[in-house]
Amino acid sequence: MISEKMKVQVQNSSVIRAMFEEGKRLAGIYGAENVFDFSLGNPNVEPPEEVKQAILEILQSEKSMNIHGYMNNSGYEDVRTTIAQSINDKFGTAFTQNNIIMSVGAGGGLNVIFKTLLNPEDQVITFAPFFGEYRSYVANYDGELVIVSPNTVDFQPNLEEFKEKITPKTKAVIINSPNNPTGVIYSEETIVKLSEILREKEKEFGTDIYLISDEPYRELAYDNTEVPYPSKYYANTIIGYSFSKSLSLPGERIGYIVVPSEAADYENIISAANIATRILGFVNAPSLFQRVAAKCLNAKVDLEGYNRNRELLYKGLSAYGYQCIKPEGAFYLFVKTPIENEVEFCNLAKKKNILLVPGSAFGCPGYVRIAYCVAYKTIEKALPSFKALMEEIR
Amino acid sequence: MISEKMKVQVQNSSVIRAMFEEGKRLAGIYGAENVFDFSLGNPNVEPPEEVKQAILEILQSEKSMNIHGYMNNSGYEDVRTTIAQSINDKFGTAFTQNNIIMSVGAGGGLNVIFKTLLNPEDQVITFAPFFGEYRSYVANYDGELVIVSPNTVDFQPNLEEFKEKITPKTKAVIINSPNNPTGVIYSEETIVKLSEILREKEKEFGTDIYLISDEPYRELAYDNTEVPYPSKYYANTIIGYSFSKSLSLPGERIGYIVVPSEAADYENIISAANIATRILGFVNAPSLFQRVAAKCLNAKVDLEGYNRNRELLYKGLSAYGYQCIKPEGAFYLFVKTPIENEVEFCNLAKKKNILLVPGSAFGCPGYVRIAYCVAYKTIEKALPSFKALMEEIR
Repeated sequence: MISEKMKVQVQNSSVIRAMFEEGKRLAGIYGAENVFDFSLGNPNVEPPEEVKQAILEILQSEKSMNIHGYMNNSGYEDVRTTIAQSINDKFGTAFTQNNIIMSVGAGGGLNVIFKTLLNPEDQVITFAPFFGEYRSYVANYDGELVIVSPNTVDFQPNLEEFKEKITPKTKAVIINSPNNPTGVIYSEETIVKLSEILREKEKEFGTDIYLISDEPYRELAYDNTEVPYPSKYYANTIIGYSFSKSLSLPGERIGYIVVPSEAADYENIISAANIATRILGFVNAPSLFQRVAAKCLNAKVDLEGYNRNRELLYKGLSAYGYQCIKPEGAFYLFVKTPIENEVEFCNLAKKKNILLVPGSAFGCPGYVRIAYCVAYKTIEKALPSFKALMEEIR
Repeated sequence: MISEKMKVQVQNSSVIRAMFEEGKRLAGIYGAENVFDFSLGNPNVEPPEEVKQAILEILQSEKSMNIHGYMNNSGYEDVRTTIAQSINDKFGTAFTQNNIIMSVGAGGGLNVIFKTLLNPEDQVITFAPFFGEYRSYVANYDGELVIVSPNTVDFQPNLEEFKEKITPKTKAVIINSPNNPTGVIYSEETIVKLSEILREKEKEFGTDIYLISDEPYRELAYDNTEVPYPSKYYANTIIGYSFSKSLSLPGERIGYIVVPSEAADYENIISAANIATRILGFVNAPSLFQRVAAKCLNAKVDLEGYNRNRELLYKGLSAYGYQCIKPEGAFYLFVKTPIENEVEFCNLAKKKNILLVPGSAFGCPGYVRIAYCVAYKTIEKALPSFKALMEEIR
């Protein structure tokens, strides 16, 4: 009696659930400390101290009604102004509160964007490997996700194939950099070329094509690598940002959308996104954490913790003969599996109590994602098992 | 370049926006204290002190990662257990955490329910007058909202017409009691009869029909009037609850769904609602406020404040010759307009700086909604204008 669309979703998710259950089963047998769960992209670094201080300050200085009450569906005006100014300071943009809509995390923001833009059968292009939820987000509004195959040399987008896949039905392109699952940052060169292709195709087809930039990992970039701000290269950009990783607040569901005034149909997009926020049932981003986020725009989680994990895991796996690109951001390593069938590899790993996600979940078979947002000790303890796994296969 | 569906939404919402802008314009000319804005259902009573205490306690006793991290999409297990027990204590039900999914307010919960249940063209029945957002919530999943015309004698549902409107395509019925906009509580007799009709029709058509009970106002019942718990009368019930009004936390977006184990296809509904929570982009209800809600299940806003407003406004308007049912719950008065065209009446009221919502927004023309969640003083100051308005019309 559930809907046909949800029947498919329930069926698909039972695979993931099975893996989750298997993890619990292994933990029951061997003890949680002896199961190496690299399957979840769940921040393990504490929120910065500023978060707690911000909550306490707000509770002390504001009237309860002003902390927990309704506001405009787009969010508090002062919060949006503060965020706009912060982006302007960092990237030399010229946003105001009228370019910002507070969202229920990036997931909520992306749903609002797709609800705003998509007619049934509109196409949205993404580059494999990609965050698997895009399939559902686009399907929610009866759009079609078009996948550009991976460039496994450096995991920058495959722009030649991209060019060929743009059609008059292409309504949007969604990118995610730093990328889940590869950790790769799309270079300035990539963004410049991608923008040129989009402008060319807009002209050719007489259409507007929006570049949606999904940015939950923007602040998680190592070695001071720059993450280009896409609206500076392409006017029809819409950005979906989240504080989930930058402040380790994934449970609080707080983020924002940016729609530049230069974007085609800007006024209608802002109006529609505002209404979509309401009618999809978000109504508004959680109110207390709107204020907390505004107070913590310069606070950062301990990136060094993730960086240590990255170095340890990357060096270890490379030494054992695993092949992967050294990630520049996020907290994932995307590793080529020493046997072709990566699902089989995941099963072999599971026998050593290592839990991984197969690359097919991200549209890129032959690889696995290792989420290293775990304790340093977990990586130390897991490395010998990775080594043994490689030796076994060889 | 926005979607066709959203174009319609933007167009419709411009009427409401015009009213909102008019309110701001009037406030600019006459001063905010001389504009009587009865148009917004925004709680004006402070959250109970327990809310602040709960936040402080949680910040002190829990690790940050446990407060702000991810959890199961359905919400924290201990929170769901506490809520289930609280419902059981109050209503003699037998729920466990497996019957509860935490939601982003009632709006988020209802979207999750409709996403879970509706195939395109499925029908959802509601009783006028009804909360206008149901139109959008059902349309989001391509369902059809079927409206039973109002019973203006006592604003209990018109069950004769209801019976006729149930078809094999009826997937659900949505009720809202205490009701927005009438403040009427559906009686036990109503719920019993409604349940009988549903069971009869399920048998006749060989279908399952879900009764969705939208309950943001459950705790706002005056004179100890009982609000029947619908799952006790009808197995195929799904409840959408919100803490927005009971704890005056509308901005925090916290509520829950209840799916009784007896409901048809219970297991699939729970699985699908869990996934729908994720793929619609809610991911989970805001984490800190899940814990806050669980600690404040017995806390209550100052109902007496709303009650004083109710008495003052109801007595005043009745004395001037306005006709309305004395509301038993929520914070709305639904008043028959002394002239037939209620939009015209709203315009006359606006000339006296009184802002109201026309009944047509709730599928019930010839009436206006007065939201009395305002300062007592606002009602005192507005009453002479209501009197003058009636005299003018006569």
